[in-house]
Amino acid sequence: ITRIKSEIDEIEKGEFGHFMLKEIYEQPRVIKNTLSGRISDRHVLEEAFGVKSKAIFDQVDNVQIVACGTSFHAGLITKYWLENIAKMPCQVDIASDYRYRNIIVRPGTLFVTISQSGETADTLAALRYAQELPYVGRLAICNVATSSLVRESDFSLLTMAGREIGVASTKAFTTQLVALLLMSLVLGRRNGLDEESEAAYIRDLHQLPDIVDKALAQDQAIQRLSIQFADKHHALFLGRGPQYPVAKEGALKLKEISYIHAEAYPAGELKHGPLALVDDKMPVIAVAPNDELLGKLKGNLAEVSARGGKLFVIADESAGFDDEVDYQLVRLPPVPEVLAPIVYTIPLQLLSYHVAILKGTDVDHPRNLAKSVTVE
Amino acid sequence: ITRIKSEIDEIEKGEFGHFMLKEIYEQPRVIKNTLSGRISDRHVLEEAFGVKSKAIFDQVDNVQIVACGTSFHAGLITKYWLENIAKMPCQVDIASDYRYRNIIVRPGTLFVTISQSGETADTLAALRYAQELPYVGRLAICNVATSSLVRESDFSLLTMAGREIGVASTKAFTTQLVALLLMSLVLGRRNGLDEESEAAYIRDLHQLPDIVDKALAQDQAIQRLSIQFADKHHALFLGRGPQYPVAKEGALKLKEISYIHAEAYPAGELKHGPLALVDDKMPVIAVAPNDELLGKLKGNLAEVSARGGKLFVIADESAGFDDEVDYQLVRLPPVPEVLAPIVYTIPLQLLSYHVAILKGTDVDHPRNLAKSVTVE
Repeated sequence: ITRIKSEIDEIEKGEFGHFMLKEIYEQPRVIKNTLSGRISDRHVLEEAFGVKSKAIFDQVDNVQIVACGTSFHAGLITKYWLENIAKMPCQVDIASDYRYRNIIVRPGTLFVTISQSGETADTLAALRYAQELPYVGRLAICNVATSSLVRESDFSLLTMAGREIGVASTKAFTTQLVALLLMSLVLGRRNGLDEESEAAYIRDLHQLPDIVDKALAQDQAIQRLSIQFADKHHALFLGRGPQYPVAKEGALKLKEISYIHAEAYPAGELKHGPLALVDDKMPVIAVAPNDELLGKLKGNLAEVSARGGKLFVIADESAGFDDEVDYQLVRLPPVPEVLAPIVYTIPLQLLSYHVAILKGTDVDHPRNLAKSVTVE
Repeated sequence: ITRIKSEIDEIEKGEFGHFMLKEIYEQPRVIKNTLSGRISDRHVLEEAFGVKSKAIFDQVDNVQIVACGTSFHAGLITKYWLENIAKMPCQVDIASDYRYRNIIVRPGTLFVTISQSGETADTLAALRYAQELPYVGRLAICNVATSSLVRESDFSLLTMAGREIGVASTKAFTTQLVALLLMSLVLGRRNGLDEESEAAYIRDLHQLPDIVDKALAQDQAIQRLSIQFADKHHALFLGRGPQYPVAKEGALKLKEISYIHAEAYPAGELKHGPLALVDDKMPVIAVAPNDELLGKLKGNLAEVSARGGKLFVIADESAGFDDEVDYQLVRLPPVPEVLAPIVYTIPLQLLSYHVAILKGTDVDHPRNLAKSVTVE
């Protein structure tokens, strides 16, 4: 009975007007689920990856990630984690590109697919292509235990996001990131990550559900900002380093459900072209955690302001952004650097939701899109 | 006297209204210059890379490319050439991202920078960072022999594009591609590319100036199409495989000089989001050489048509696209597959030029942009 009850809860919108909003608000809980049984006080509990995983992980010295859409963005963020935590190179490819290339596999490469449904046609085809290639193993990060992707991979780590109904993926994305961070730690252990450093990351992870709650608390502030997007047809999302894929994911959400032509750019590339687009009709949204790239990012944003661009900055409250005429701020609490990509995703999800509501679109079923892309 | 005369010619617009158009039309000639002395009937003349190059090339089994803007797109195309011709993995990064990452260098990696001016601040900083890393060598692909990038690299191959004055790069890009294709052949030789296959590629390269001429002959057809962009504020560029970076470059050109918000997408990713944007206000431009991805691309384009999107297809005349209500075609002659990324760039350059003229922008000096980005 408990199980049936919880399943019914899952598919009801409850107090929320749309599944998307409900799913955004579920994130603290489902992130906790994805961590549950997979970490202790100080360690990743590696057994979560299954009995076959140890022998495979022991051989890995680099990673190839393949995915589509939102899951591809999770892969792009993971590249930074693998470089920083596991000191391993990582290659991230779009499945519809990867599967038609002449892939040269280096020794010691782990093949990782990411998909909410586990039935994404191109990702599944990429896995099947990879079966013929000399990878040390094939890992699926997936939300559906019974999916083709999970069944056909050597091993898997499930995201415990529960059923996701909104076409625009939210909780599936953030739980994918949690799973991929666990993978990065497990690989890091084999490549110089010491016990204390691992324990520090684990302490950060234990805080994550609360930090996501704090990000959600900015909902009203974000709703107020969203009014300024109601008459817009364009938007530019900027980030640097691992915040560039976060910006890409923010732009994709806005595209998908509000039909605003939103595009993300690595902030450092602004002067190589997109700055020509900036005027008062092109709002610019920047993600600005307080990291070592902050100074550079501020320089990029000053360029935008100087060209009359309207700036919205999602910033660490300690990052020294003042409420000025030029900037409109959403402030987030200080966040451990490793978690920033997960946490900064939340305000962008809320922004796209509120803009879509103002635009009057069908938030849970945007035009032209399907929940799982099971055809090529 | 001859030399002074030719220098004056170089900086005069002659019959052309703008430097950009003049530079587009110079491409057959400057491509010939970039090939001159670097290929025989059947081989790349490896000495063109300088005396130090042999010892370095002999150690290479993979390549790291770093660049910004248009040059970054040249790098993305090169990845396909290296995989197909040299059977080598290749990693391509944006300089402003690369220089702040914890790069893990694999043994046998050649570091390659690409820059028209050789003074691009982020690319130069990336090279300086790479000096501290265990690469087997550092190669610059550059248009200015006296530049910092050339001076600080172990060796270089100059693009013989002549001075480029238009801010939107055209001839520098296509000559970079020619130089990078020569590099791919030289590396291929060391990794299983046999004499006959090399000779076949060289025969293709000898044809390239004439094929580019034929692409330029589509100028009037493209000018007629451009009228339909005069009132547009958006555009979507689609390509698959190596044509995705070509689409990215086409979108960047249109952005830079016409201020139309143009974005490129790998065609296979359409269903994962951007299809929601497609309606009659969003023209879609597709690059469609007659390659093995053509069938897939046609499927993607059918999706666009079904959603009321207005389609413009740059297609191989043998690719089976008919003039239908749904498509507007620019036909190109059949092109050897390896050259397609270079040739399909030409119509997109012309399109952005003609649209900018209709929009009345300052083509050679678009707002907010500088020719060389020598600050970060």
